[in-house]
Amino acid sequence: MKAELLTIGDELLIGQTTNTNAAWLGRRLSRLGVRVRRTVTMSDTRDAIQRELDRTYQDARLVVCTGGLGPTHDDRTRTVVGEYFDAPLHTDDTLLDRVRQYYNRRDREMPDAAPRLAQVPEGFEPLDNPVGAAVGLWYEAADGRLIVLLPGIPDEMKSIFDASVEPRLGALPGVGEVHHRTLVTAGIPETALQERLGDLSGVLGDDVHLAYLPSTSGVRLRLSADAAEADATARLNEVASVIRERAGDCIIGTGDVTPEDALGHLLRDRDATIAAAESATGGLIGHRLTGVSGSSDYFLGSIVAYADRVKQAVLGVGEAAFREHGAVSEAVAVQMAEGVQEALGTTIGVSTTGIAGPTGGTPEKPVGTVWVGVADADGAHATHHQFVEDRTLNKELFASAALERARRGLL
Amino acid sequence: MKAELLTIGDELLIGQTTNTNAAWLGRRLSRLGVRVRRTVTMSDTRDAIQRELDRTYQDARLVVCTGGLGPTHDDRTRTVVGEYFDAPLHTDDTLLDRVRQYYNRRDREMPDAAPRLAQVPEGFEPLDNPVGAAVGLWYEAADGRLIVLLPGIPDEMKSIFDASVEPRLGALPGVGEVHHRTLVTAGIPETALQERLGDLSGVLGDDVHLAYLPSTSGVRLRLSADAAEADATARLNEVASVIRERAGDCIIGTGDVTPEDALGHLLRDRDATIAAAESATGGLIGHRLTGVSGSSDYFLGSIVAYADRVKQAVLGVGEAAFREHGAVSEAVAVQMAEGVQEALGTTIGVSTTGIAGPTGGTPEKPVGTVWVGVADADGAHATHHQFVEDRTLNKELFASAALERARRGLL
Repeated sequence: MKAELLTIGDELLIGQTTNTNAAWLGRRLSRLGVRVRRTVTMSDTRDAIQRELDRTYQDARLVVCTGGLGPTHDDRTRTVVGEYFDAPLHTDDTLLDRVRQYYNRRDREMPDAAPRLAQVPEGFEPLDNPVGAAVGLWYEAADGRLIVLLPGIPDEMKSIFDASVEPRLGALPGVGEVHHRTLVTAGIPETALQERLGDLSGVLGDDVHLAYLPSTSGVRLRLSADAAEADATARLNEVASVIRERAGDCIIGTGDVTPEDALGHLLRDRDATIAAAESATGGLIGHRLTGVSGSSDYFLGSIVAYADRVKQAVLGVGEAAFREHGAVSEAVAVQMAEGVQEALGTTIGVSTTGIAGPTGGTPEKPVGTVWVGVADADGAHATHHQFVEDRTLNKELFASAALERARRGLL
Repeated sequence: MKAELLTIGDELLIGQTTNTNAAWLGRRLSRLGVRVRRTVTMSDTRDAIQRELDRTYQDARLVVCTGGLGPTHDDRTRTVVGEYFDAPLHTDDTLLDRVRQYYNRRDREMPDAAPRLAQVPEGFEPLDNPVGAAVGLWYEAADGRLIVLLPGIPDEMKSIFDASVEPRLGALPGVGEVHHRTLVTAGIPETALQERLGDLSGVLGDDVHLAYLPSTSGVRLRLSADAAEADATARLNEVASVIRERAGDCIIGTGDVTPEDALGHLLRDRDATIAAAESATGGLIGHRLTGVSGSSDYFLGSIVAYADRVKQAVLGVGEAAFREHGAVSEAVAVQMAEGVQEALGTTIGVSTTGIAGPTGGTPEKPVGTVWVGVADADGAHATHHQFVEDRTLNKELFASAALERARRGLL
C-alpha cells in the first residue's frame, strides 16, 4: 500500500518546529509495510489544503494528514476536508459529552470554541484521543481509499495512531509488506565502501533496494525488501551475508548501533576498561562514550590535554617528542595514549592530537590532520588520518576515528 | 519572495532520518524574508523528481532542492534536473581538479565514480562546498526564477548555504524586508524569563514581534520588525534596550552567540584561563569550549573523572567527602573544581557531578540532579540544579549550567 503524508502548519515551514511527526509516521507506516511515497508540508489555508488533497489523492491509497484539528478558527482541516468530500459537518453528541468531561475533569471552564471539537464530517469516524481533547478522524471513500486526520501535537498524534490507526491498517489486506535491515559501518568512506562491495546488482535483484547513508560516524547501508515477511527475511539474510563477507570488519552492527555502542559492547565483552587522552577532540570522545547509559562499567575518564604543558605535566609526554616531531605527531599520540592508560589504570588508552581548524594548518600538517593513538596490553601505536576543513566536522570525524581504532584494537 | 523546498531521500520518507534540513532552511530563508510556502519530501526516482519540479515551479520563484548530489548511481538530482531544463551535462575541468585535490589531500585514491561530482548542467553555476566534495548548483531561469541544488548531508548543505546561497539571495531585490534581532539569555528558564520581562505589548506595538526560542543552552529572544531597514533598526533598538534593562545579566549577547562564546570572550578580556573537572557531563564542557576557534588561548584542558577513583586519584577529592555526602554532592563538586584548578594551574576551575539518568536516581537525588562547582581566586563554591529525565538533554543542561556559573563568576 502506498501512502502520502500531509503535515499542516506554518511553524513547520519557517522551521520553528522540526517535522518529527513526519519521521515518526514514516517509521511506523514503513514497519507496517506501507510505503510512504511523499510528504508535503503546507500552510493551513483553505487553498493550500484543497490543492494538496487534489494532488495527493491521485497517487496514494492512504493519506495521513496531521495538524489543524484543534478548536480555534485557525484549525481548518476538519472543515476543508469535509467540504472536499462533500461531507457536511454535524455535531456528534457523544463527542460533545466527552469534550465537556475533558474540561470538567481538569476543573477548567469549557472554552466557547470547544464544541467545534465535536464536529464530524458526515461519514467520517472519530478515533479516540487517549491524551487530549481533539479526536482523530477516519474516512473510507467509496473507491476503497483511506483518509486519516490526526492532531499535530506529537503526543496526541502518536497516541491515536497507536490506539486506533495501526490496528485498523494492520487488518487491511496487502498491508505489512516492506521490510528493512540496516548494516552499520565505520572507518571507511562511502566511495571506498562502494568499491569494496563491488557490483551488487546480481545479489540485490529487483526486489531488494540498497541505500548508502553517510554521516560523521560512518556509513549505514539500508536494505529494503518488497515482499511478504518470510520471503523478505530470507532475501535480506542473503544480501546481508554477501555484504558482510565483502565489507568484513568494517561492519560494526545493525540497526541504530553507533560506534560508541559497538566499542562499549566489545569492552564489556572483554572485561576491559578505557580512558581517553584528548587534544583536538576537546572532550568529545568522553562525551560520546558517556552518551551510552551504563558506560561507567568500562569508561573511567579522560584527560583533555588541550595545552601542551598539560600533555607534559598530566600525561607525561616527553619534551623531546614535542621538540623533534611537534604536538601533532605519531610520537605525541603514542605517549598520550600510554600516559592516560597509566594515569587512570585502564586496559586501553586512546588519544587524539590534530588540527581541527580553521587556523593552525601548515603545508606539512594541513587542517584536518589527526594522529590517533591506541595503547593496550600489546603496546602502543598511532595512525594518521586526513579529514576536512571544517572545525565541527573534524572534531566529530577525529572522535569517530579514535573510537574505531580502539574497536579494531579489540578484535 | 516565495520559496518551496524539495527534500529528496527515501531515508526521510521512512523516518530513518528526521528532516532537519527543511527546518534549518525554513529558519534561514524566513530570516531573509523569503516565505517558504511548501516543503515536499520525495523518493530519488526520476519520475518523482520531475513531477515535483513541475508542480513546484508553478508556485514559487525560488526552489531549493536538497539531496542526491553525491557521486553514486543513486544520486540522480543533477541529471534529472539538467534534463528537466534541457541542460546537457558537461564536465567542469576546474571542478574535476578540485575533486582530485580533495582525494589527494586525504591520501585517498580517487574512486571511479568521483568524476560525476564535476558534472554540471549547462548554464548552472557551481557553488563551492567548504566541507565536502559535492558542490551546490545555482540556476537562474530565463523568467527570473531560481533553482538551488544542495547536498543532503546537513553540514555540507549548511556550509554552502552560508557561503554562497545566503549572500546571493540577500542581494536580490525584494529579499530581506523582515529584520531580525536576537538577544540570547542563559541560566533562566522560559517562564521565569517571561515573568521578569513582564508585559511588553506596549513596547512591541503592532510592528515588532517577539518569539521565545528555548534550547538546552538557554532561551533566545527573537525580535522581528516588518519594515524598511532604517525604521526597523530604530524600533529594534528601542525594544532591545527595554528587554536588556529588564533581563539584566541573563543576557549573554546577541545573534548566534553561545554560552561558550560568551564565557570565552570574558576569559580573554580578564586574561584568565579555565579547566573543567567533569563527571556527569563526560567531556561535554571541554567539547563545547573547544568548539570555539581560538579557545586554546584560555582553555587548558579537562579531567573527566567518570569513575570515583579517578576523582580521588587525579583530582584529589577526599574519601571523607564521598563517605559523608556521596559522589553527587556540594562537597565533591567543590573539591573537583579546586582539584582541576590546581592540577592544570588555571585561574578558574569548573566542575559537574550529577545523575544524567536513566538509571542511578534515588528519592533524595533524582535523575536530573547536578552540583556545579566553581573555583577561582576568591575560593570555591557549588550550586545545585534539578533538570529533566532524559540523559542526552541532562548532559547538555548540566554543561550549560556549568558554563553559565563560570561566566557569572567573572562578572
